[in-house]
Amino acid sequence: MRVNAYAAPAAGQPLAPTTIERREVGARDVLIDIEYAGICHSDIHTVNGDWGPQPFPLVPGHEIVGRVTEVGSEVTRHQVGDRVGVGCMVNSCGECDRCTSGDEQYCVQGMVGTYGATDRDGTTTQGGYSTHVVVDADYVLSIPESLDAAAATPLLCAGITTYSPLKHWNAGPGKKVAVVGLGGLGHMAVQIAHAMGAEVTVLSQSLKKQEDGLRLGADHYFATSDPDTFEALAESFDLVINTVSARIDVSAYLGLLDVNGALVNVGAPAEPLDVNVFALLSNRRSFSGSMIGGIAETQEMLDFCAEHGIASEVEVISADQVNEAYERVLASDVRYRFVIDASTLD
Amino acid sequence: MRVNAYAAPAAGQPLAPTTIERREVGARDVLIDIEYAGICHSDIHTVNGDWGPQPFPLVPGHEIVGRVTEVGSEVTRHQVGDRVGVGCMVNSCGECDRCTSGDEQYCVQGMVGTYGATDRDGTTTQGGYSTHVVVDADYVLSIPESLDAAAATPLLCAGITTYSPLKHWNAGPGKKVAVVGLGGLGHMAVQIAHAMGAEVTVLSQSLKKQEDGLRLGADHYFATSDPDTFEALAESFDLVINTVSARIDVSAYLGLLDVNGALVNVGAPAEPLDVNVFALLSNRRSFSGSMIGGIAETQEMLDFCAEHGIASEVEVISADQVNEAYERVLASDVRYRFVIDASTLD
Repeated sequence: MRVNAYAAPAAGQPLAPTTIERREVGARDVLIDIEYAGICHSDIHTVNGDWGPQPFPLVPGHEIVGRVTEVGSEVTRHQVGDRVGVGCMVNSCGECDRCTSGDEQYCVQGMVGTYGATDRDGTTTQGGYSTHVVVDADYVLSIPESLDAAAATPLLCAGITTYSPLKHWNAGPGKKVAVVGLGGLGHMAVQIAHAMGAEVTVLSQSLKKQEDGLRLGADHYFATSDPDTFEALAESFDLVINTVSARIDVSAYLGLLDVNGALVNVGAPAEPLDVNVFALLSNRRSFSGSMIGGIAETQEMLDFCAEHGIASEVEVISADQVNEAYERVLASDVRYRFVIDASTLD
Repeated sequence: MRVNAYAAPAAGQPLAPTTIERREVGARDVLIDIEYAGICHSDIHTVNGDWGPQPFPLVPGHEIVGRVTEVGSEVTRHQVGDRVGVGCMVNSCGECDRCTSGDEQYCVQGMVGTYGATDRDGTTTQGGYSTHVVVDADYVLSIPESLDAAAATPLLCAGITTYSPLKHWNAGPGKKVAVVGLGGLGHMAVQIAHAMGAEVTVLSQSLKKQEDGLRLGADHYFATSDPDTFEALAESFDLVINTVSARIDVSAYLGLLDVNGALVNVGAPAEPLDVNVFALLSNRRSFSGSMIGGIAETQEMLDFCAEHGIASEVEVISADQVNEAYERVLASDVRYRFVIDASTLD
């Protein structure tokens, strides 16, 4: 089955319309008619070759929402007509301890990414900037109908990437959580942490987005460009979620943590970061990382967002605006996520 | 009250006999006739000035065991004749959240170290290389009589420094724990982790101390100088306790951790360490630190060691051998802890 898509022909090249092959719907697969595909900063890193060589031409996109139009004979989890979503992974071994305990993202054999990865059948995966996708039903999420489809799309990556560490590190009533960076990930982290009952502080470079941050649920908003911030907030947080992938002064952020506090990176700069170990010994602190979340947890996050009326703030674009959108993402000129209307690919 | 002691007259100078003043026994104090004082690597760092300027002349020693010879009028916790111990701290505010929750070592106002610190009455604390010490009874531990006094001495620092993170990070049955370095701290970590029921692996530079490691309770022993070690043990540990204060390749050790695993430093190199954040994202790993333990936890550790027949392997020396012992500690030529027989100071 050939379908329309937007692909990067080579590293660093602008994306352009093309057609790609989707596999036959197998017994365990569902065919999804894509409605929206989100643009994640990692799409840009990947097609630029920042994260190593890629199998070009490459169709990015790992935030996908659409309707099921066909299901395989063994599929019981989804039905034709259901609104569904696909996130950052489309397969894993399904048998290792990690897969069976719901941590498929850490599959011993490696999870299969939604694009640019080698699937278990040997084919290369292609992402959501497309009209259709065929995915193993076990890796397809149900999107609650109460959520707006476009606004729900970024939940599949930005939502779970922040929900999972917030839950793992027990964000909730009585806990003080800081979110570093108010972008695609940060604006989800603020909403989710607030809905979990935590006291939420945004740490942003400037106060430019303060009004947004408070509207999204933050209790406090500080500029990290102001050196007083680090003194005023010293030793005050249980959890700091760092959504910024650029280099940060890790030891300065560790200094913001109370006893047993954790600084959790959800993005990774290409270069190693310096850590002053005294900052870890003091207050028994941790510097940690977290990568998306498992399938069951992603469903839990979607249901949580529906229950709390949480979604992403999105700017819907047509497919031919993708390259311009990439430039605006790089310039931090989006509040807070671009979502491609896949009907513009028809 | 003037008492005999061994003091460093200035940074980097050999220790020499002297006398120091101990305060009057206050209403909440106990006077301890010191039997043994352990030599900790941090004593050497401190008197060498590695950790900044110190109030010289300085009497080191924060592993102290002795007998109570006098108690203040308000003391109910200890009685004359009790065998007691003093560890790395002799005071704290006693009122902050951390103190009241048993984390006095992270006191908001700063714990008062056993030597070289300014006590709450403004005097400078002097440590255990001495015949007597006066300490607030709340910071004095009970040493179970079943423990040998000399062998119990290093528990006050090396024991609690390793017990606390092992307990905090849930070492126990079904958990795989690695101990990096088999020195004063490492040889305690191995015994305690084994007694807690964990499967214990020693990661030492060479296999020189393998026989000791296995005798102390390790199930496995690997040389970190062998590059195959890091491949063979990849992603296999729940917890890695790093007792080595020198620079290590943090990212290589992070690679040894399974999902949710933690690499915990109990010592700190003077220079910052490089951390590859991808190694944290993968498997949701943590790089953490831990500093001694609280008073109640130290008592719990002592009781645990008595129950399991655990103690330090010590070489008892006379006070005039201190400077030679320091040289041997720096050359890693001790199995596993020097303990000064304080009766040689009389």
